[in-house]
Amino acid sequence: MKQQKTIVVALGGNAITRENQIGTIDEQFANTRQSLEGIAALVHLGYNVLITHGNGPQIGNELIRVEEAGNLVPTLPLGVLVGDTEGGMGYMIEQCLINVLKDANIERETCCLVTQVMIDPNDPAIANPAKYVGPFYTAEEAAELKKTRGWNIKEDRGRGFRRVVPSPTPLSIVQKDVIRKLVKHQVLVIAAGGGGIPVFQAENGWLEGLDGVIDKDLASALLGNEVGAGELMILTGVDQVAINFRQPDEQYLDRMTVSEARKYLDEGQFPPGSMGPKIKAAIRFLEGGGEKVTITSIEKSGEVLQGDVGTVIVND
Amino acid sequence: MKQQKTIVVALGGNAITRENQIGTIDEQFANTRQSLEGIAALVHLGYNVLITHGNGPQIGNELIRVEEAGNLVPTLPLGVLVGDTEGGMGYMIEQCLINVLKDANIERETCCLVTQVMIDPNDPAIANPAKYVGPFYTAEEAAELKKTRGWNIKEDRGRGFRRVVPSPTPLSIVQKDVIRKLVKHQVLVIAAGGGGIPVFQAENGWLEGLDGVIDKDLASALLGNEVGAGELMILTGVDQVAINFRQPDEQYLDRMTVSEARKYLDEGQFPPGSMGPKIKAAIRFLEGGGEKVTITSIEKSGEVLQGDVGTVIVND
Repeated sequence: MKQQKTIVVALGGNAITRENQIGTIDEQFANTRQSLEGIAALVHLGYNVLITHGNGPQIGNELIRVEEAGNLVPTLPLGVLVGDTEGGMGYMIEQCLINVLKDANIERETCCLVTQVMIDPNDPAIANPAKYVGPFYTAEEAAELKKTRGWNIKEDRGRGFRRVVPSPTPLSIVQKDVIRKLVKHQVLVIAAGGGGIPVFQAENGWLEGLDGVIDKDLASALLGNEVGAGELMILTGVDQVAINFRQPDEQYLDRMTVSEARKYLDEGQFPPGSMGPKIKAAIRFLEGGGEKVTITSIEKSGEVLQGDVGTVIVND
Repeated sequence: MKQQKTIVVALGGNAITRENQIGTIDEQFANTRQSLEGIAALVHLGYNVLITHGNGPQIGNELIRVEEAGNLVPTLPLGVLVGDTEGGMGYMIEQCLINVLKDANIERETCCLVTQVMIDPNDPAIANPAKYVGPFYTAEEAAELKKTRGWNIKEDRGRGFRRVVPSPTPLSIVQKDVIRKLVKHQVLVIAAGGGGIPVFQAENGWLEGLDGVIDKDLASALLGNEVGAGELMILTGVDQVAINFRQPDEQYLDRMTVSEARKYLDEGQFPPGSMGPKIKAAIRFLEGGGEKVTITSIEKSGEVLQGDVGTVIVND
């Protein structure tokens, strides 16, 4: 079997749901199909591709459904809901991938693995939940939910009140050995959807779920390191990473090194809610053994046959 | 690598949710853990185990949630909801399996695959939907839903009106080659949850989802045949299969052959909604290359270390 290059491609929110759309399932399937054209191109170039994906809008909808039906059917913890989105979205992504590969006359096996990710039960993020999930509430609703459900709720940049949950650092992919085997067999694997389901080892040695979420870009970086991938491609809403964003001296970057990335990060060039986590994930991937990170848009990712796209980040 | 016997174990509804319980997630985790003790015993006996599972109560809850939140967030087709339950339940089952194996000091890799199952778009079951899903409605609600949603709704044995969907015959597991590889590597695989997501090949060659469900026992039999499993174990609410059930001459069976099973089936010994589909799945598995089917309860399955349990069905 020919040794192939391995790449992790992380599909961002807008790979599947667009801001100017309602988010119907037909829209999600159509967007996903388009987003996978670049992945078909990577497979054509000889890459083993691992696909990860976000689940923000989908888990938001799940949380609304669980609440709305709360008087009729039992509620579900976040871990199970992340599992749900790994299944439903994984199905959608895999089916679109199969169809895109068929159109491109590429024969490759595919699969989607439900993925658990180990975290440290003493991770400081658990005591300081900071990741917004689900719908917006009024101040009154927020006070009521804090009392009845024990949720942590914070104001989200003047837009209303939202539940906040812990987003601890991912330490290891529970299914990593299985994923390694599949990659060795050149199977195209969808894994760590929504960042994976956060679990920790309880005192009796059992795995237990944490009511929280994991950043999907950090999980993608970890997955890449654990399967020995050389490359990570993060697909997002912009073609390239910018410094001095929306300033007179705004500059889009073709390339940067880890130390440049870290310097810009320290300068506050990349906002915590958007580009920041992607840059952190890129640094983690490169410091963990990766060779190249590309941050670009879905549209640009289709142009990989012509060479580098987006912003490329490499080791110093 | 030592050649191992392969068994498919199909977890019935009550392996995860019990009739006398509300069905909270804590109850589901506790039931699942108990249901997997027998599987740990099978692994201890040297089997490669593939686990499948039903999703009746869970998809019923999903359908209620989608309806209740219908004014707030987009609806989802049945295929995506089956995918959701494959993810959420698969996570729960895999986590319990990891914990049960740990307690038994058994080291084996595990994974859960989101599974699509090919059906024939001309399957007569599609024109004659007969599988009840979701909650009960009044006659008035049923009439309204028929009109607004285009659903097929029928009266369910005097208990109220319910949506009916097609349950076509499963023909092939889309991910079978991947599952075969994993079994060869002795990975314990959870697959075809809820019978798998029904898909068919559209005219343009693409896979497309069908708004229906697949019988989980038939899907389990098919999965077993496609991975070359010798055995199928169907876990349900009773210790053994009975003929003349609840009659003066009621008789529980230790063993029967395919022709006996078929004769009893033709006599109407096994009701369509309960034991019938299990017997049909057993026949299909044995005629498709399988050697042995066991139908028993979760409780009895823990006794496999002592020899045969339940009702064993074999070829003539």
